[in-house]
Amino acid sequence: MERSQPFLLINFKTYLEATGKRAVELSRQIEKVGENTGVKVGVAPQFCDIEKVAATVNIPVFAQHIDSVTPGASTGHVLAESVKAAGADGTLINHSEKTLLLVDIDRAVQLAKQTGLRSVVCAGTARLAAAVALSEPDMVAIEPPELIGSGRAVSKENPEIVTESVKRVRKVNRTVAILCGAGISTGDDVYAALKLGTDGVLVASGIVKATNPKEVLASFCEAVLRLA
Amino acid sequence: MERSQPFLLINFKTYLEATGKRAVELSRQIEKVGENTGVKVGVAPQFCDIEKVAATVNIPVFAQHIDSVTPGASTGHVLAESVKAAGADGTLINHSEKTLLLVDIDRAVQLAKQTGLRSVVCAGTARLAAAVALSEPDMVAIEPPELIGSGRAVSKENPEIVTESVKRVRKVNRTVAILCGAGISTGDDVYAALKLGTDGVLVASGIVKATNPKEVLASFCEAVLRLA
Amino acid sequence: MERSQPFLLINFKTYLEATGKRAVELSRQIEKVGENTGVKVGVAPQFCDIEKVAATVNIPVFAQHIDSVTPGASTGHVLAESVKAAGADGTLINHSEKTLLLVDIDRAVQLAKQTGLRSVVCAGTARLAAAVALSEPDMVAIEPPELIGSGRAVSKENPEIVTESVKRVRKVNRTVAILCGAGISTGDDVYAALKLGTDGVLVASGIVKATNPKEVLASFCEAVLRLA
Amino acid sequence: MERSQPFLLINFKTYLEATGKRAVELSRQIEKVGENTGVKVGVAPQFCDIEKVAATVNIPVFAQHIDSVTPGASTGHVLAESVKAAGADGTLINHSEKTLLLVDIDRAVQLAKQTGLRSVVCAGTARLAAAVALSEPDMVAIEPPELIGSGRAVSKENPEIVTESVKRVRKVNRTVAILCGAGISTGDDVYAALKLGTDGVLVASGIVKATNPKEVLASFCEAVLRLA
Repeated sequence: MERSQPFLLINFKTYLEATGKRAVELSRQIEKVGENTGVKVGVAPQFCDIEKVAATVNIPVFAQHIDSVTPGASTGHVLAESVKAAGADGTLINHSEKTLLLVDIDRAVQLAKQTGLRSVVCAGTARLAAAVALSEPDMVAIEPPELIGSGRAVSKENPEIVTESVKRVRKVNRTVAILCGAGISTGDDVYAALKLGTDGVLVASGIVKATNPKEVLASFCEAVLRLA
Repeated sequence: MERSQPFLLINFKTYLEATGKRAVELSRQIEKVGENTGVKVGVAPQFCDIEKVAATVNIPVFAQHIDSVTPGASTGHVLAESVKAAGADGTLINHSEKTLLLVDIDRAVQLAKQTGLRSVVCAGTARLAAAVALSEPDMVAIEPPELIGSGRAVSKENPEIVTESVKRVRKVNRTVAILCGAGISTGDDVYAALKLGTDGVLVASGIVKATNPKEVLASFCEAVLRLA
Repeated sequence: MERSQPFLLINFKTYLEATGKRAVELSRQIEKVGENTGVKVGVAPQFCDIEKVAATVNIPVFAQHIDSVTPGASTGHVLAESVKAAGADGTLINHSEKTLLLVDIDRAVQLAKQTGLRSVVCAGTARLAAAVALSEPDMVAIEPPELIGSGRAVSKENPEIVTESVKRVRKVNRTVAILCGAGISTGDDVYAALKLGTDGVLVASGIVKATNPKEVLASFCEAVLRLA
Repeated sequence: MERSQPFLLINFKTYLEATGKRAVELSRQIEKVGENTGVKVGVAPQFCDIEKVAATVNIPVFAQHIDSVTPGASTGHVLAESVKAAGADGTLINHSEKTLLLVDIDRAVQLAKQTGLRSVVCAGTARLAAAVALSEPDMVAIEPPELIGSGRAVSKENPEIVTESVKRVRKVNRTVAILCGAGISTGDDVYAALKLGTDGVLVASGIVKATNPKEVLASFCEAVLRLA
């Protein structure tokens, strides 16, 4: 299997620094760094911001979640078709801050496929990463919950979980892309993640809460290029 | 207490007929009927559609739900600030298709207040309507779940629940506006609802799934004027 | 309204110190202190322990939760009839460690009534205490979640929330008994709680995790008698 | 791999026919049929009934669910240690009427192991059966939700899902026992299930709601013996 080009996906969570107009601004900066370095970058803004972000930048835009509902009487739910119509290219599923029933993870992946959305399913352990890989999403993202937002990078604090995840996921699914996340905040963290066999990183506060997001992201991209 | 002007709130749910561009179109039609008749109308589109609907029409726009989270690390959640930044005037809370923990209903109402969003808290029984009225939202909406989408109007099928709700709500809260919903599909249903002491209706399929939504809404507005 | 005799309800949670045979032992000690002092005491053991506790001691036994399900196909749920058949006299509902949908709180209270179980509905704030009091349970229990297990008694740390709860609950329900809980660990805490107008306390770690539960409970009972 | 002896597990759900004393009675009948035929049978009564059932019969007793909590402050939750102390040999996990977060399924399986409980993890599709098999429970049970309680047996109505489940599960886990369930109500249904490569059945209404449970179970056991 040929190695796919590494992917850096920035999750805006519900940070005010990345809400509304600031979501658009930050997406622009991220797009710029991507263009400058040639590294593949994407963003995951809040639902209300998807459309204007997608209309502004030319990088992949992901929703942070979709519900496993089909069109109809589901007030307050996030419909795949709605996210897609707004311009999203994909969606996170089962982020550790929005964990789902097993049955809904699988349904959400299938709904994403049917709607033409790429799916990134998150999992907190190597075993669960393999479990969700069986649903054949486009990507899985390993994020040990205890390291999320900690500033201590999973790729350095707990490289075994990354290696083990890659091994277990590959055993059941040879093509899914594998991201890792949690605590990623420097280019070295990204470099370490890729060296461990991942195809990119899922990052949030490391970029969104940085004093200079552009600079930090540039160092991430530089790490990607260093590896190439 | 002076009677407030009746309010007709149209919930778009996750109907494809009211998703994406069709959400904007339908909102325009609704606005037009409101202008023509002078009756106060509002819409509750999906999260991804709030901004473009709010940018297009000059009627109140409500979210269908907000989560009881504050800005930060809440991937996949619906932040009051995000909904507000997109242009929403208010939000539904605890719709029977998105029921909440008691503690989260109250938190969501307070978050709405703090963010400058009006709140419409739904409840399925008279007793629960009174319970949520204690949180002092702007409106409560009585919707017996068994009648939702049934085409059999709560105001005709079960007028007692409406009367009883008004009575119980008024006992604990003299100022909250009281809507009712479920099965509302004709002007007569609306007329009956207002006669029972409510301040308006919450309606979904009755308008959204109608062959001619504009015509049906016009008949609703005509019923409001008949009463005045 | 005549003041009812104060009630001390000990919640065993899932503490190993109060699981299985140790649940029976602890219940015996609690019964003994109740007998010695004439103070009304009760226990809330885990589901599996209800029957043997109820068969052993002659004090009220409460379940820690019931689900709002009726007999039938509800695998893994806690049926009111099952709890009752095991010998329970009542049940906690909506404890802050097992919070429920608003609609399920109300249903659970009604199911308890229909099954002949007394209900103690928990709430974390004065407003929510009033909201649940509308369902007309036998008791409400005010427990600010932030003080639970803290060793800092609600009746001393936050007497206002107790006073305010009593006031708000009484406004909508004149007969429901009002307990308070969270951090209660000394006789003085109990005394303070009763002085604030409550009808008893809900306590867990203060008794269950005490080096000498019998002694601590005796001091609680002594506080009750001091007041009488 | 040697084929293990088939296992018939009867889930009592929250049926009144199998609550309290009737749970004990029914368990006795089930034990008797097991003794008479030499077929391995087990029961899954409600939490409150585990202890008296386990004290009465000499067949495996399963809980219907455990929560993924450890001893401590988890009011209203079902602790593995409590279930074990009551005499249970194992537990169902993720039944379609008590579905769990992916992360909690895995935790519950690990907690069961640590506590000495056997685990039967339920799944509604072949893919999900494989996913849960990665957690290495003792058994997985395939139950398409749409057939549960239908009287139309999964092994006859949808044999492909059973075959496919066996295939997918075996690919990732060679030793886990595989049950199937949903709609099983005759000996022929059981026979068909075993012929499809399963190691037994999970059955509820087919036995519990039968006019003569003993007779129906006897026909199930006869089907097992026919195969041997």
